[in-house]
Order: sequence, then structure tokens, then C-alpha cells
Amino acid sequence: MGDISCSNGNGNGNGNTNVYSQRKSCWYEEEIEENLRWCFALNSILHTGATQFQDIQLLDTKPFGKALVIDGKLQSAEIDEFIYHESLVHPALLHHPNPKTIFVMGGGEGSTARELLRHKTVNKVVMCDIDEEVVDFCKSYLAVNSEAFCDPRLELIINDARVELQKREDKYDVIIGDLADPIEGGPCYQLYTKTFYELTVKPKLMQGGIFVTQAGPAGVFSHTEVFSCIFNTLKQVFKYVVPYSAHIPSYADIWGWVMASDYPITLSPDELDLRMKQRIKGENRYLDGKTFVSASTLSKAVRKSLDDETHVYTEGAARFIYGHGHGSAHKNNHA
Amino acid sequence: MGDISCSNGNGNGNGNTNVYSQRKSCWYEEEIEENLRWCFALNSILHTGATQFQDIQLLDTKPFGKALVIDGKLQSAEIDEFIYHESLVHPALLHHPNPKTIFVMGGGEGSTARELLRHKTVNKVVMCDIDEEVVDFCKSYLAVNSEAFCDPRLELIINDARVELQKREDKYDVIIGDLADPIEGGPCYQLYTKTFYELTVKPKLMQGGIFVTQAGPAGVFSHTEVFSCIFNTLKQVFKYVVPYSAHIPSYADIWGWVMASDYPITLSPDELDLRMKQRIKGENRYLDGKTFVSASTLSKAVRKSLDDETHVYTEGAARFIYGHGHGSAHKNNHA
Amino acid sequence: MGDISCSNGNGNGNGNTNVYSQRKSCWYEEEIEENLRWCFALNSILHTGATQFQDIQLLDTKPFGKALVIDGKLQSAEIDEFIYHESLVHPALLHHPNPKTIFVMGGGEGSTARELLRHKTVNKVVMCDIDEEVVDFCKSYLAVNSEAFCDPRLELIINDARVELQKREDKYDVIIGDLADPIEGGPCYQLYTKTFYELTVKPKLMQGGIFVTQAGPAGVFSHTEVFSCIFNTLKQVFKYVVPYSAHIPSYADIWGWVMASDYPITLSPDELDLRMKQRIKGENRYLDGKTFVSASTLSKAVRKSLDDETHVYTEGAARFIYGHGHGSAHKNNHA
Amino acid sequence: MGDISCSNGNGNGNGNTNVYSQRKSCWYEEEIEENLRWCFALNSILHTGATQFQDIQLLDTKPFGKALVIDGKLQSAEIDEFIYHESLVHPALLHHPNPKTIFVMGGGEGSTARELLRHKTVNKVVMCDIDEEVVDFCKSYLAVNSEAFCDPRLELIINDARVELQKREDKYDVIIGDLADPIEGGPCYQLYTKTFYELTVKPKLMQGGIFVTQAGPAGVFSHTEVFSCIFNTLKQVFKYVVPYSAHIPSYADIWGWVMASDYPITLSPDELDLRMKQRIKGENRYLDGKTFVSASTLSKAVRKSLDDETHVYTEGAARFIYGHGHGSAHKNNHA
Repeated sequence: MGDISCSNGNGNGNGNTNVYSQRKSCWYEEEIEENLRWCFALNSILHTGATQFQDIQLLDTKPFGKALVIDGKLQSAEIDEFIYHESLVHPALLHHPNPKTIFVMGGGEGSTARELLRHKTVNKVVMCDIDEEVVDFCKSYLAVNSEAFCDPRLELIINDARVELQKREDKYDVIIGDLADPIEGGPCYQLYTKTFYELTVKPKLMQGGIFVTQAGPAGVFSHTEVFSCIFNTLKQVFKYVVPYSAHIPSYADIWGWVMASDYPITLSPDELDLRMKQRIKGENRYLDGKTFVSASTLSKAVRKSLDDETHVYTEGAARFIYGHGHGSAHKNNHA
Repeated sequence: MGDISCSNGNGNGNGNTNVYSQRKSCWYEEEIEENLRWCFALNSILHTGATQFQDIQLLDTKPFGKALVIDGKLQSAEIDEFIYHESLVHPALLHHPNPKTIFVMGGGEGSTARELLRHKTVNKVVMCDIDEEVVDFCKSYLAVNSEAFCDPRLELIINDARVELQKREDKYDVIIGDLADPIEGGPCYQLYTKTFYELTVKPKLMQGGIFVTQAGPAGVFSHTEVFSCIFNTLKQVFKYVVPYSAHIPSYADIWGWVMASDYPITLSPDELDLRMKQRIKGENRYLDGKTFVSASTLSKAVRKSLDDETHVYTEGAARFIYGHGHGSAHKNNHA
Repeated sequence: MGDISCSNGNGNGNGNTNVYSQRKSCWYEEEIEENLRWCFALNSILHTGATQFQDIQLLDTKPFGKALVIDGKLQSAEIDEFIYHESLVHPALLHHPNPKTIFVMGGGEGSTARELLRHKTVNKVVMCDIDEEVVDFCKSYLAVNSEAFCDPRLELIINDARVELQKREDKYDVIIGDLADPIEGGPCYQLYTKTFYELTVKPKLMQGGIFVTQAGPAGVFSHTEVFSCIFNTLKQVFKYVVPYSAHIPSYADIWGWVMASDYPITLSPDELDLRMKQRIKGENRYLDGKTFVSASTLSKAVRKSLDDETHVYTEGAARFIYGHGHGSAHKNNHA
Repeated sequence: MGDISCSNGNGNGNGNTNVYSQRKSCWYEEEIEENLRWCFALNSILHTGATQFQDIQLLDTKPFGKALVIDGKLQSAEIDEFIYHESLVHPALLHHPNPKTIFVMGGGEGSTARELLRHKTVNKVVMCDIDEEVVDFCKSYLAVNSEAFCDPRLELIINDARVELQKREDKYDVIIGDLADPIEGGPCYQLYTKTFYELTVKPKLMQGGIFVTQAGPAGVFSHTEVFSCIFNTLKQVFKYVVPYSAHIPSYADIWGWVMASDYPITLSPDELDLRMKQRIKGENRYLDGKTFVSASTLSKAVRKSLDDETHVYTEGAARFIYGHGHGSAHKNNHA
């Protein structure tokens, strides 16, 4: 109806029209917390579906490229997932003298495996994700990881990561937690408890082994949600614990990770840069020695909070988090 | 990142989760006017493109089904376009004693032709739209009109409707204006002027002929934008002028049409119902005799405004409308 | 931070700037249904609070003036509440030969009383609302009704309308339901049941008495939510039942009302106009005789639905409605 | 209308109702860039107005407290402005051996002065803002800065900062740029050019003097907008240039600053901590020695960009930025 059918009907030809036709009309909207929304203009909705465990969407967004959304929460955006995945993988592997075998809890997207397989020392990556459909989905849609999924060094297991790790007799040089945040009642809470770290993770680390986990938002306010507790819980179990963080634009926040080991984790920026050159195929886009120095030097407020944190995740004591049950759900506690 | 990989990872299994996973995250947003937005949850973006004249989108919306959006303005939604098109087409054809030949200015979507071709009396529909790509697009995507596009009684012309109507020597029983609103500087303004009606439309009507045009928003406030002026302009040129209106849910407003003729336009509801039964294939979903009585009995405020309207569209005097240059752009003047 | 402090710092002076500074940045957003949002630019938030029963907001909106929002649902907007309240009040009172005493269930806003008190025949209006704080709030903030609240003919009662009506021994010429929609589990469901109409309302009507109630959304799709059931329920109890509707711009929908009586309800437009002139102080802005003819002549689809409706509201059989528990919550069932 | 007036009308009493009444209905929405929106739930709109130069709003937001919005762009939020202002002020003053006199270009909000006046060495702060109404507004509304506005060491000048600085004969230990971003055609562009730094700023620095300026967004993508150019421009004029950055939650981005001097700017974290203890009244919330180490150690991508930057701001060569003409307008260039 109401079609244009007259000769000056060039919608792009006259002044003000442009302004309105340029307005973006399709949007992805995420409630970062109850009172805070983050909205991306959309090019298209590439896929919408539901697996046995989760709702899944692949969106083509204007500001951040292709975006993987699980249960209404952005997991990973094409344009900046390298920040998350380089930060998750390389510090632990670089600090290890000779990382050969890796176990990944979660990681179905494939990007963690991709970064791991860039390490020349690595000859075995076991990646254990519970949701086969998400893994298949990412295999099909995320071209950037297709090489990784075909790498013969990758063993892909569909199972509960805890069950799988417990039943395996192998030990690993590095174990990586690429899991949803520890939310009370959430799916992954048990994989962040002191008991799990003590009885399941630590015994599966080889001598010199390092554990690293994503650790939720780590902003000047948001780090109190789970980052400080994950840090403190790991401190109960491991001798050396290194928290670090990085800004991820598509998350609208700083993100955190924690490395833990019973062996010292200390390299100078130059040593890190040297090992990167020696061990990693291709060049990192985000991480180098100095970047890690900056990332692992937390700001005053966050350092103080981490020092003061007393909460330990146990089977019986969890902290609530907004939108719980979801991947990177988080709430900025600004109180 | 942050994938779920543990056995209780059922995003739909625990209480509050549902609430947030049910939140719709992809939205189409239209600025109905500068201060008023109307937003539909999206299933998908079926197509995005630009023709020589216009930006065009086909969206799959949750509340209104497939929606055709031109230059950021909703043109037509699957679920309720029948209200617009039955209202545009049938009153004029039913009030005509024996409508055989029809000229449609605009109408590229095909729905106007579809409704016209349901009339058994009609043996020729000339539909003249300027934008071949929109027409081709609608042919491909709007299955509901595919039969109409193939009907041998339809002659589809790609041209400026004014130029086409002027150059043709034929006269028509009914001429239909299915054009963008008369916005000063907009593409279709000239097709709503007194001069155009007098010198181009009226001479091309056969004896007993009726002209009908879409006439923009017709709500208790919004009718002052263009509806009352179109009515008043036609009143300068034709002896009998009948304004009527209907609520179209996807437009979030009442919409208006005006019929005009030099021959009386008066049928009782029963006569209308009888002619529908005799002449129209299939059954109308929206319009019958009583519906037209209601539609053509305007509310007190609108009637008064129409009676008091003094403005006439001429080449040199137009009224501004928000978002001008676009299809069904309109502004609710609540002043 | 980042303040302008240099001489060409005129934010309104340079071309494109205007466009962005004109963007409205504060918005009221209502989920009309789960998949449909309606958003008004805001001038200010005049009041936010919570009563014993409800959350309450008074907003100053750009498109619709001051707006009363209860539990996140728009109740009434300054610019078009006259459509709702003239439609609720005048048809019943005009069809009654000599309405003197009126009972209003709900109506705490005061606008229903205001319209009632314009009738010269009326010498008693009992308005019974359960929420004293809302009534006090509206008394303070809605200047347009302040005269009504002071009128000595108004008796304001704070009580459950059902309890109040049952305990009173008086009968009324007109009883008016200005209540939240009948939503299963909602606060007002019981005031829409067959039992309530039969055992509480009807016995309290004087001879010739008329009952009228707001009846929820009445659009071509949305009328199936509650409008058709209220109509059908009243049809079980009263001899004459007249449904009618009107478009209310701020609701983004058509709204419905139902009148019911054991005495015929039939006046011509001219008779209605005459009675308005004789009985009502001041002039209506929306309603006159013709407007009521149009309002009470429903469109084909709605008429058919009402004829076919079989559901009757009883204590044990209710229909779900989106956002239940709230004032004018409604859901467009487009299925 | 549709009021609740029945006894179970407790909107907060029944299950699902909660969910909907909890939905936030009033929002502040900012277009961070054309394709990216950042939305805060609102408690109230405390003030809306327009000065000679700018539109101004003071909002009470749920996630970030009171927020000052100028020309539709968030300037400063109660909850995290300390990050911006501590970062702007303290590094320069601490690196100076004995800062006594300070000139602030812009800073009308008062927070920059507040942080400056915490330094015991400071005996004179000249703050020069062009918009008297904004200054008065902030004086009235921002209680946190009221003490600073009354401090006898503060000399408040209403003037174009460039004109003021040029005409003054005094020199300063530290000059601070708290201005809108350098946007071509924007109000402050000229205060970021090589010429301005060379001919106006540098001559007004005492021996050992340091210049520091806010330098726009400094995220892994967004630093290319203005941060890298400001850095490079200052590098043309000063011998030592130190860029640094911090995440500001309410900006949804990393923010940048650049210090510049002809004297070396190097202190260890411990030296910084010591000077803070000696010179600053009260304790910083954000900045300490280690925080500055982290802040001034940029990530690989940003460091590389800054090294590679060749653009210099001159009167005749500017870069476009989205929403230009505004305070902290910025665009994430993700290309």
C-alpha cells in the first residue's frame, strides 16, 4: 500500500529524508543487568534455535559483526572474541614450561581450541562440552574456527565436564575453565567450588600444571559479583593465584580470568614476548608481554576487594547473580 | 566462551531463568512520530535491500507476521493488510454500477490488484508503479499476491503514474490512488493536488466513474495531517465525496480513505452486502455493509475538522509531515 | 568532564548536530503485549510511588501529555482520556430516561465522576474505589477532576466495590464498571462473572436501570481477549446488551464498552443529540449521536466473533490475559 | 480508568505479576554510536533545560546514580565520575615536583577543581568555562562539588578558554584540558591543534610544567577516533608524552588521557604512592601507583596504533566523529 509511483520518488534524493532512512530499525537488545540495556543495530538474524539445553541465536550485528547469543546473553562477537580467547588461553600456556596436553571444560564455540592449537608444544586438546547441538552449530557457522575443529590434535567430547574429568585417568599440563559463571542454581556452579578444585581439578594437573578459568565481569564495580570469589576460592586450593582482566567492547565491561598453580607464575614481559615468538603460530592481535603486565595489575579498588574477599564457593554457599543460569550473565553491583 | 558444559545445564529448568530467556531480544522499531515509537519483536529479517528509489525490508515479526518496510516505515503487515486493501478497493467498486476497467496509481505490493481481481465485473486492471524492483520483490516474496500478479486481466506498467495516466487515452470506471502521503517535497505530493484531480484524474473517469484514494492517518488527532486536506481538495473537484476510516492494528492508528465522484455514492448496508455476494469471489474478512456504515460515519471531532478544513492542495501549497518522503509516514498532531 | 569552553561552542549552531540533539533521550516504554512495545518520549517523571495495592506513576509525556501509569500499564493520558470517559459514561446515561443516582465501581481517577456530574439529572454519584492512595493522588495531581472531587453530589467510598454494592440497600439508575480487566487471578475477575451480574448488579438497578462496563480492548484481533466474553456473559443476564468501541490513540488500540439492561436501549442519533443538549453541561469533545452509531456498529469480524462467543465468565472459568493483575493489561491475540 | 477496586487487588501479591511490575518502564537512551545504544533505567528526571550553548539534563538513573547529560551525551555519572577526574588530575600533579598554580580549560562541572584542591601544594586554580549557566547549574545541583566551588583558591572565569589563556600573562605549573573531544567543526577542535599547543599552551607552562588533557575513548577499537591523534599531535610539540587510560562503566568504554611535558615524566609506583600520601588530602578511590602503571601500559593493539599514527591536528585537518559538536561524543571505529 501507499507505494511511491511518481517520478520524483527518490527516497534518497531529498535532504531530511536521509536522516530518517538512516535510522536503524532492527535491534538486538540485551539486559546487561535489570537496569541497564545494551543494544546493537542488526543486519540480519542468521539463525534462531533451541538445543536440549539452551536457546541459541546467531546474529549479524552492525557494531560487532556476527554475534553468538545463548539464552539471551551475548557469548561472543566476531569483532572482539579474540580478546577473550587470547586472554583465556595464552597466559597459562606461556607460563607453563612446556604445555603438551590440555583439557578444556566447555569451549563448545571452538575459539578456545583454536587459540590452543596455535601452540606448537601442544599435542593434545581434550574439549568437553555438554551441548552437542551448540558445538555442531558453531562448527557449521563459525568459519574462523573450522580449521581448529578439524585439527587431529583435538579430541571433542560431549559430556558433563565434571563427570568427564573425574572419570579420566590422564593428567594435563593445563586445564581451562571456559564455562558459564558460578551462579547459585546455575548450571556451572559446582565447577567453581573449592571441593571441585581440590578433588577434581588439582589431582588432574601434571607436575608444573596450571589451571585457568574465565572469572566473570571484573569492572570497578562488577568484580564483586563472582570475580573476587573465584579468586578467593582458588586461593584456598592453590599456592599461586594470578587474577587479570581486559576490556571487551561487546560486553560493555571489563572481563576477568584467574590462573592458579602450585608452581610460581612469574615471567617478565620480555620473557612472555620471547615465548610467544617461539611457541605460537601467527601473531596475537591482543596479548603481548606488556599487555599482560597491564592486565594483571588490577586497579586499586579491585585489588582491595580481592584482598578483602572472604567468600569461598562451596556446595552449600553460593552468590546470586542476575539472569542466572546463563553464560556470561552478570550484574554490576554498584552499591 | 563461557559455555555451559555441566549436567544441570538446562537453561529452561529453573524458575527465574524462564523469565529472562523469554525476553525478546530482537526488535523492529519504528518512529511513528518524533516522540512515539512502535516496536515489534522479530523472528527474522527476511530481506534487506535498496532499489533505485527506496530502501526495502521484509521482516518476520512476532505480533504482525511478515511486514514490508519501505524507507523505515511499515507499509503492510501480513496479519492485517486485508483491512487496508479491502477498505481501499471494495467501497468504490461496489458503489459503481458495473466496474470493468480500473487504473491503480501505485500498488506495487500487489494486494490492491488482488482485491480488484476478485470482482467478477472487472476485466482490466492497469497497475502503474514507478519502482520495478519493489514490484519484483513483492512478486517473489508475497505469496498471497502471486495469483494476482499472474492474472491475465492485470496490465503492469512501470512508470510515473501521473505521466502514464496523462498519456493514456483510455478512460476507467474506477481510478485508485494507492500512493505515499501528500507530503510537501515528497514524491507523491503532486498526485494529490486540485490541478491533478481536475486535469488528469477526472477526465480519465468514464461516466459514473469513481475515484478513491488512501488518505493517510485518520485518528481523532492525526486526521489533521493530510486526511482533512485530501477530503477538502477532492470536494473542490467532485460533486460527491465520501471519507471513511478503519483501525489498522499494525499502524497503531486509524487509517483513512476518500471516495469521490460526480455521481451520488449511496447504498444501504443491505445493498452493499447484496452486491458483495453477487460480484466478489470469496468472502471479505473485514468489510461488509454495516462495517462500511460504521467506517463512513466519522466521530464528532473528525467530522467537525473535515467540515472546517479550508486548505486545498495545490502545486504551491503543501503541508509538512514528519518523516517526509516516505510511504505511510505520519505525525499525530495532538496540539 | 569534557565541557565545552571555547567560543564556537554553540551546540545548536552547526548542521548535523541538530539532528542528534533533537533525539529524544528519555522514554516511557510499555509492553502492550509480550511482542509489542509502545514508547513515549518523556518530558519528566512527575511522581513515582507505591500504594498498598499498586505501583503508581505520573509521567509528563511528549505525545500524550500527563499520563497515569499503574503497575506499568498506562491507565489514562491527559490528551485522550476524554474519549474513554465520555464513551463509558454518556451512552448509558443518555439512554436512561431520567438518571438520578449512579454507582461507580472503581473510577478512582475521578474522570468518570467528572463526566457523570455534567449530567443535570444526576443528584447522587457513589464512587467506590479500593485504593485510597490512588484516589488521593489523583485528587492532588489531576487538576481536570478537582471540581468533580469537590461536588457535593459525589459520595466517595474506599472499599471493595463488590462488598460495598452488596451491603448497600439503595438501588441505582445506572451502575458503572470502571474496573481492571477480568483476568483470571487478577483483582477484578469476580466483578465480571455471571453470578456477580445476576446476584449483585442486577438487583441493585432501579426499574429502567442500565449497567455499563468498560470491556477491554476491542480491536479486530484484540476483542477476543475479554470483550467478546464480557458481552456474552452479560447476554446471559440481561435482555438487551449493546457493545460499542472507540479508538484511543494512547492505548494504541480500539477500546470496548458494553451496556446492558432489561429495558430496550435504542435511540436515534438525533434523539441522542437532543438529550445531550438538554441534559449535559458543556459540550462533549468526542461523543455525539452519529459517533455512537458508528461506535456501536462493530466491524464484520468483531460482530461475528461476538455472535459466536460461547464463553461465560463464572467463578470457575476464566481466561488468561497477558500481564495479568493489572489495570488495562491486554494482549492482542492475532492468532 | 479501569481502576482496581476489589479486595484481592494487591498488585504485588500474586506470582507472575511481580515480573511485569518489576519491568522498568522509564529509560534514558544514548546512541553511543549510530549502531550502538546504551540505556539506563530512570528513577526521575531532575532537571531539563537549555543554556546559551547547550542542552542540559540532570537525571537520576538506577544503574549509575545522578547523571549529567549535555546535548544528549552523558558527561558524568555520580557513581563513577571519580575514575575520570582522579585520572585526569592526579597523574600530572603527582609527577610535577611542586604544583602550585593550575589552569583548567573547561571543567564547569566542578569535579576537576574538587580533585585539584585536594592537593596541599596547590594555591591557585583558574578554571575557565564558557558556559556560565552550566557552571551555575552544577554549583546548585552537584553537592559533591559545593565545597570546591567555595574554596578561596579557586578563580572561576567565564570565557573562551583559548582567549583567556592567551590574554593572561601568568604561567602555570599544570594546565589541564577538560574539554569536549576534538571534532572537526566541533566547538573545541581548535584547542587540540599543534598550533594551539605550541603557541598558547606551552608558553604558559612554568619550568617543569606539565600539560594533561582528556583524550576521548581509548578502547581497543575506539582509540583511533581521537586518542591516537591527540597523542601524536602532542608528540610534535612536547619532548615527553604519556598516554594512559581507564575503564569508565557509565561510558561503556575505556577512556584516555595524555600527559605531555618537556621534562621527564617517570615515577615508580612506590614514589607515586608516597607523593599521594604526602600531598593529597583524603584517599583516592581509584588511582594509586600500581593503577597508574596499569593505566599507562596500553594493550598491544593500542600501542601499535599510537606508534603508527601520523595524523596531526592542525587548523586545516580534522577527523570526523559521530555526533559531533558534543562533549564526549565518540564512535567506535571497528573497521
